Amino acid sequence: MKPDSFRRVDITRVSDSERTSNVDRAATEEPLEIRLHDRPFAVVMRTPGADRELAAGFLLSERVLRTPDDLGTIAYCTDPAADHPENIVNVTLAGNAAAELDRVFAARRNVTTNASCGMCGRLTIESLRVDGPPISSDWTISSSGIVAIPDRLREAQVVFDQTGGLHAAGLFSRDGQLEGIAEDVGRHNAVDKVVGRLLMQDQLPLSDHLLFVSGRTSFEIVQKAFLAGIPILAAVSAPSSLAIELAEACGVTLIGFLRGRSFNIYACPDRIVTS
Amino acid sequence: MKPDSFRRVDITRVSDSERTSNVDRAATEEPLEIRLHDRPFAVVMRTPGADRELAAGFLLSERVLRTPDDLGTIAYCTDPAADHPENIVNVTLAGNAAAELDRVFAARRNVTTNASCGMCGRLTIESLRVDGPPISSDWTISSSGIVAIPDRLREAQVVFDQTGGLHAAGLFSRDGQLEGIAEDVGRHNAVDKVVGRLLMQDQLPLSDHLLFVSGRTSFEIVQKAFLAGIPILAAVSAPSSLAIELAEACGVTLIGFLRGRSFNIYACPDRIVTS
Repeated sequence: MKPDSFRRVDITRVSDSERTSNVDRAATEEPLEIRLHDRPFAVVMRTPGADRELAAGFLLSERVLRTPDDLGTIAYCTDPAADHPENIVNVTLAGNAAAELDRVFAARRNVTTNASCGMCGRLTIESLRVDGPPISSDWTISSSGIVAIPDRLREAQVVFDQTGGLHAAGLFSRDGQLEGIAEDVGRHNAVDKVVGRLLMQDQLPLSDHLLFVSGRTSFEIVQKAFLAGIPILAAVSAPSSLAIELAEACGVTLIGFLRGRSFNIYACPDRIVTS
Repeated sequence: MKPDSFRRVDITRVSDSERTSNVDRAATEEPLEIRLHDRPFAVVMRTPGADRELAAGFLLSERVLRTPDDLGTIAYCTDPAADHPENIVNVTLAGNAAAELDRVFAARRNVTTNASCGMCGRLTIESLRVDGPPISSDWTISSSGIVAIPDRLREAQVVFDQTGGLHAAGLFSRDGQLEGIAEDVGRHNAVDKVVGRLLMQDQLPLSDHLLFVSGRTSFEIVQKAFLAGIPILAAVSAPSSLAIELAEACGVTLIGFLRGRSFNIYACPDRIVTS
């Protein structure tokens, strides 16, 4: 494991209402911009390391490369004006693929597709930060209210599925009522479904809601909570480094490893009252 | 849980070299095409159900919708020529968002972004199937070779991380040697990194390789294996319904729930020899 695969992060650990400061590790997540002949082609959220390999494999999956002969060069950005050249790789094509370059970009224009990752049209975290003020909602919830969340889902006959095939997202009101639940093969989709339902009911921003997700929290999940105006986001598993940074910047309280009577707070801990 | 969240699938269960036929459930995965004013905007791989809500939440995350007032109507496709109208929703915008429609499509053209989902430019599974003949590689591997894979990773000082923040992918040669490993916050990225390294070394197609991934297998992971020419794909957790369908169509042997001395085979079982 490379040293930059993880970052040290300061957390607040809450266990049986005991609150302690601690240091934890979070998987590093940063954007990688992939350029084709110096033209921006895609941005992928990734853990730094093996970036050139990632670009090669990504372009194979996108069918820009069909054989190794299609690959010319892959190199990190050398543009002195680039803010983060370590997060940009430029790929040149060879052979048949090079002749198809214009067609590749044209095809991408026709149908744009993604896994609801929330990154579309955005290159950097900085471009999100100016999108609006941080969430200022000042309601608080007790730690006992947080640890009760999994039980409330069980009462609703929903069991967050960890070994099977589905991810889940649940929306809770300020008084702990379950207001919506969705399950999906995609983590992003489950969140979009519960948020989308309240959007259709004209209830945004969701300033009085808490979002609970199975699995991990990435940049995109925090972004979705922020755009819906949700001040508290809790998850069964770990957040990425960028999820934590974004949550801090956006004023979203970020909780991870919510299991049994314990959880970690990674950002904006003031909304959690220990009791 | 909706009845169409899961599908019944026939599997071969292998436990301590005993081989039995069985029936299992797989989470349903199908593409949803989201149209804006009848123009294709995005395709999301999702579990059917709450599709209109998914579209609303997705468009909020994409910042096409900024407030509930921006939303006009959301309806399933009524085009009689559509093959799968249940997998297409059309959204109309209102207010400011409607006036921005051309700008929304233009912005999408400038920087296309995704989470390496492998769906770009593809609308249906059918469009992939014509992309090439199924993998015909006829080497076989013993069930004892399959259950040894997690141990070989442990020998390489790599522990597939299930509770923390990283996904992993490992490539094995025909004789069981670990040839490459990558860890990443993104499942797709980990696969792209190990495949991309061998692509850069001019070693594709990987007809003599087995790919092992932590977590679940979706359509996209099978697609990546197929495009790299990998005949056997094994995972710690469950495959989606579309992963199984695609593996069958593409001639990829698909293994799930590889834990301890047991695993399930979901597609193309003939490459696994029980011994």
